[in-house]
Amino acid sequence: MGQYRNPTPTVDIILERDSNLLMVRRKNDPFKDHLSLPGGFVNEGEPVEDAMKREAMEETSLEVHPIDILGVYSDPTRDPRKHIMTVVFIGIIVGGRIRAGDDAASIEWIKLADFERQQHQIAFDHAQILHDYLHWKASGGTFWSTKRRNE
Amino acid sequence: MGQYRNPTPTVDIILERDSNLLMVRRKNDPFKDHLSLPGGFVNEGEPVEDAMKREAMEETSLEVHPIDILGVYSDPTRDPRKHIMTVVFIGIIVGGRIRAGDDAASIEWIKLADFERQQHQIAFDHAQILHDYLHWKASGGTFWSTKRRNE
Repeated sequence: MGQYRNPTPTVDIILERDSNLLMVRRKNDPFKDHLSLPGGFVNEGEPVEDAMKREAMEETSLEVHPIDILGVYSDPTRDPRKHIMTVVFIGIIVGGRIRAGDDAASIEWIKLADFERQQHQIAFDHAQILHDYLHWKASGGTFWSTKRRNE
Repeated sequence: MGQYRNPTPTVDIILERDSNLLMVRRKNDPFKDHLSLPGGFVNEGEPVEDAMKREAMEETSLEVHPIDILGVYSDPTRDPRKHIMTVVFIGIIVGGRIRAGDDAASIEWIKLADFERQQHQIAFDHAQILHDYLHWKASGGTFWSTKRRNE
């Protein structure tokens, strides 16, 4: 074991309220100034669902609980730095008040309808993830990078 | 990036036919002689869904397609060797004929009802995963190690 190289696991978090999604305006490259879902790396010794809660707290100061897994996205080109696979949770806010963490220029509530109209520049493959989230709201399911989607 | 240690990603595969599940009788430790789901490590550069197809082929000689993600299991103690996080796919068999790979003593179709009666020794946290699969069959959902379950 351990003689092979593996993708690096991360988590991303979808938080919706009143048809708005909580997004991070990125302060740094890659995708500086683009919008991304809150998220980050999973540490050794930490369950992914705990990483999700920790990253939500660090990036947005919100206390969040997982309610579902939207999917696992692992296209090797989805992050320009290295092969990152992300587990995307759908969460609910259970406490805290929004304050941007160190990696965020700002935290913004973005109208779901704006994503459908492609009004924003979205980092990584998060536009695909948000598209899948709209599918999930309509009819459930789980998603992955190469899943065949009926557009 | 890369200065931290992360869990190592794997995939596991649930394949059901006629109320039987395809299980691998493990040839080696840990959990020698126990039953486990087919699965294995995700390679760098490989999407998790491709790792799922590759591992199914290597371990069982079956061609498999993903139809859903059951969950992501990442309790740090679930594998005695190191922190392994697994993405569990539900798949369908689309080709091939069953033949055990190098790591398997045998490939066996096990009655779902036998798992409920705890008739077998199951490796890792795969008994929990199979329990969650029965929930999924009844009412859908996605799962993770510390999810609160109504038993």
